[in-house]
Amino acid sequence: MNDSLAGDLDRIARELDRAHVFHSWSAQGQSPQLVVASGRGCRVWDHAGREYLDFSSQLVNVNIGHQHPVVVEAIREQAELLTTIAPSTVNFARGQAAKRIVDRAPGGFEKVFFTNGGADANENAIRMARLHTGRDKILSTYRSYHGNTGSAIVSTGDWRRIPNEFARGHVHFFGPYLYRSEFWATTPEQESERALQHLRRVIEAEGPASIAAVLLESIPGTAGIMIPPPGYLAGVRELCDRHGILLILDEVMCGFGRSGRWFAFDGYDVRPDLITFAKGVNSGYVPAGGVVISDEIAATFDERVFPGGLTYSGHPLAMASIVATLDVMESEGIVANAAAIGETEIGPALAELAEKHEVIGEVRGEGVFWAMELVADRETREPLPAAEMGRLKGAMLERGLLPFVQDNRIHVVPPCVVTAEEVAEAVAIYDDVLATA
Amino acid sequence: MNDSLAGDLDRIARELDRAHVFHSWSAQGQSPQLVVASGRGCRVWDHAGREYLDFSSQLVNVNIGHQHPVVVEAIREQAELLTTIAPSTVNFARGQAAKRIVDRAPGGFEKVFFTNGGADANENAIRMARLHTGRDKILSTYRSYHGNTGSAIVSTGDWRRIPNEFARGHVHFFGPYLYRSEFWATTPEQESERALQHLRRVIEAEGPASIAAVLLESIPGTAGIMIPPPGYLAGVRELCDRHGILLILDEVMCGFGRSGRWFAFDGYDVRPDLITFAKGVNSGYVPAGGVVISDEIAATFDERVFPGGLTYSGHPLAMASIVATLDVMESEGIVANAAAIGETEIGPALAELAEKHEVIGEVRGEGVFWAMELVADRETREPLPAAEMGRLKGAMLERGLLPFVQDNRIHVVPPCVVTAEEVAEAVAIYDDVLATA
Repeated sequence: MNDSLAGDLDRIARELDRAHVFHSWSAQGQSPQLVVASGRGCRVWDHAGREYLDFSSQLVNVNIGHQHPVVVEAIREQAELLTTIAPSTVNFARGQAAKRIVDRAPGGFEKVFFTNGGADANENAIRMARLHTGRDKILSTYRSYHGNTGSAIVSTGDWRRIPNEFARGHVHFFGPYLYRSEFWATTPEQESERALQHLRRVIEAEGPASIAAVLLESIPGTAGIMIPPPGYLAGVRELCDRHGILLILDEVMCGFGRSGRWFAFDGYDVRPDLITFAKGVNSGYVPAGGVVISDEIAATFDERVFPGGLTYSGHPLAMASIVATLDVMESEGIVANAAAIGETEIGPALAELAEKHEVIGEVRGEGVFWAMELVADRETREPLPAAEMGRLKGAMLERGLLPFVQDNRIHVVPPCVVTAEEVAEAVAIYDDVLATA
Repeated sequence: MNDSLAGDLDRIARELDRAHVFHSWSAQGQSPQLVVASGRGCRVWDHAGREYLDFSSQLVNVNIGHQHPVVVEAIREQAELLTTIAPSTVNFARGQAAKRIVDRAPGGFEKVFFTNGGADANENAIRMARLHTGRDKILSTYRSYHGNTGSAIVSTGDWRRIPNEFARGHVHFFGPYLYRSEFWATTPEQESERALQHLRRVIEAEGPASIAAVLLESIPGTAGIMIPPPGYLAGVRELCDRHGILLILDEVMCGFGRSGRWFAFDGYDVRPDLITFAKGVNSGYVPAGGVVISDEIAATFDERVFPGGLTYSGHPLAMASIVATLDVMESEGIVANAAAIGETEIGPALAELAEKHEVIGEVRGEGVFWAMELVADRETREPLPAAEMGRLKGAMLERGLLPFVQDNRIHVVPPCVVTAEEVAEAVAIYDDVLATA
C-alpha cells in the first residue's frame, strides 16, 4: 500500500468514527486518537504502519495476543461450515467448547451456559443463584466491575453503577485492599482477617437468609488488581457455607491465563459454586462468555425451566474460537509463560521501577496481571491527579507503548504470550515516562 | 465422509451436548433433538446429511439465509486482518458498519452504539432514554420480548419476566391485538383507537413526568407477529410528543428485511427517537446488536459521559459481517424479495390454508413475518393445547420442515431469500400436518 493511500485510510476511518460511532463510557465530544488496522502477538498498527507495543491486551482480553494464526484459521473453517445456529439445537463445536472449559474447572462442574460476554454471564449467574436459593440479595464489593447490563451494572461497585441503579437486591461491601485499607490494617494477615469480619457483619446485618450469593472477582481487575490476601477467599467460602449462600467467582478478566493459571481462584484454596468467564476464553476474537455451573446448581434446572437465554448462546463461530484458543494455549504453554514471565520478568522489573521512582506507591500482581499505583505523595498515598495520568498516558503512546491506564494506576497487562524482550521494551518506556512525573 | 463416521459425529455431538451444554429457556432434562452441522440458504442438515427446510430462520435471525458466501468471505478477510479491538480505538470496519446502518435510518439519525445482541441494545437504549429525559419509567407491552438481561427482561411482558423481576421503573400496558382484543373492539380501527385510549390513560395514571420512554417492538415478534392497526404507532408518537416521552422502537426481530422493509416502522408513519437492532443486521453470523441514536439524544452525551459500554462494542469481526450483509441485501434485492414473496406467495397460501383448516383461527403478517394462530374452536378462539402443538411440531420436523412454534402459533418466518418453490414446499407440509390436527 502506498503512503498516501495508507494515510487516507487512517483519515477516512477517523472521519467515519467521528460522524457515526457512539463510544463506550465516554463523552462523545472527545474522539479516540488511536486507529488500529491490524496486529500480531503483542503489537498492533494503524493503516500507515505506525506500530504500538500492546501492554493493555485491549480491555485485558487478548490473552493469546493479536491474530493468532491457529485461531484465525479455526474461525475461517467454522465460518465456512456454519456461522450461527439456534441454541435449542445440538452443535458439535458447542459441545467441544463446553468440554474444553469444564476440563479446566475443578471437579463437580460439568455444564456450561454460554453468553455473548461477561455482563450477561454475570446476569445469568445471578439468575441461577437466586432461583437455586430462593433468595434475592447479591453481595459484591465496592471496588469491582461486573458488566454494563441491568443487574451486572448494579453489582458493580465503581462509579459506573451510580447513574444506573435500577435493579434491586444488591448490597455492597468492602473487599481487602491493604494499600488503601478500609479496616485500619497494617499487614496482609490483618487485612484478610478484618475484611472477613467486615463481610461477616454485613451478612449478619443484611440477614443471611435473604442472601443468594456473594459475587467476587477472584482478583478484582479494573478496580486495581488486588491480589487476595492469605486466607481471604477461603474465609469467604466458609462464611457462605455457614449460611447457605452461594459463591460466584467472576473470572471474566482474571481467568484463562491472565493470573498464570487457567482460573485465578486455582491459586487461592477456594471452590466457587458458579464461575463466570468471557475475554480470555477466546481472547475476544468472537464475542463470547458464559457460566460454568456446579452439578448441584445445574440439577436445580433438570426438571425446572431455566428462565434465561439468548439468540447467540453457544454461537458456533464463538465456540470454534474457544476450542482453538484453549487448545493453542495448552499446546504452546501460554498459561505457563504468563506465570513464568510474571515471576522472573515483570515482577522484578516493576519492583526495580518502584525503587527508582518516588511516584510509584505500590506494585502488585501475578502472571501478566499487574498494577503500578501512582501517588503524588508516598506518605499520604494521595493518588496522582487525573490530568497528570492523562499526560503520562499520552507520553507512553507517543513512545509507541499502548498502556492500560485506570484512575491513578498503570495496569501492566500484556498478552500472556509476551516475551522477556517485550517486557524489557515496555519497562524502558515506563521508566523514561515515570521519570517525568 | 462415510456414513458410519457421519453417524458417529451426530452421536458424539449429542453426547457432548447432553453432558456439558446448559440450554436457554428450558428444563435441562429434555435434550434438543436436532443436530445441525451446516446449512445453505433456506436449508440446514446434520452430519449424516439429513436435510431440513428452515422456516424458522433459527430464532428469526438468518434473514439472508444460512452461509451466504459473500458474508462468509468477509468474515474470513476481517479475521485475517483484525478480529478484535477495544471500543476506545478507531476501526475502519466499525465506521463503515455504522454508516451503512444510518444510511438506512430516517434523517436525523447519525450515530450508532454497538452491542453484542438485542438484549444489551435495549439495555443501552433504556439507559440513554433515562439519562436524556431525567425520568425513570419505561412503558412496554405485556405481549413483548426485549431480551434476557436485567432491564430488558423486566421490560419484556411475557412469562419470562416473572421469575426475573429485579429491576424497577418498568410499567406494562396492553398493545393492540384485534384477534384477542383487550379492548372489546371488533374492527382494526376500533382496536387502534381503543389501544391508544388505554395507553393515554396509563400514561396519565402513571404520571407523564415520570415516564422516560415507551418501548415497543414495531411489530411484536415472539409474542405473535401483531401487525399494528392503522394509526396506532403514529398515535403512540403523538402521545409521546405531548408529554416529552421518548419512543424506542425495538427492531431486533422485525428489522433489516423481515417485514419486507429495512425497518418495519418505515411502513407505519412513525419516527422513533431510538432504534434497537440485532439479528437481521448481520443475520447473526457474528453476535452483534446496537442502538441507532437520534441526533438530539446523541447530543446529550457530547459533553456528558455516557455511562454504558462493553468490551466487544463495535467488534471488527461483527462489523465486517454487518457491512457485507447490508451490501449483499442491497445488491441482491433481498429486502424486495421478502416484500414480494410475502405478498404474492406466503400471504395467499396461508389464507388458503386458513379456508381449508378449521384449526387455523387467524393468519396475519407481511414480508417473511407471518403467524398462523391455531385454535381448538374458531368460535371461542381457545388456543390449541400445548401437547397438540408439540405433536404438530414433531410431525413437521419428521417431514423435513424446521418450523417456528410458539404457544399456539406457527410463525412462518423463513429467510428473506426464500423462493416461491420453497414456500410451496413448506405450505404442502403445513397443509398435510394441519389436516391431522
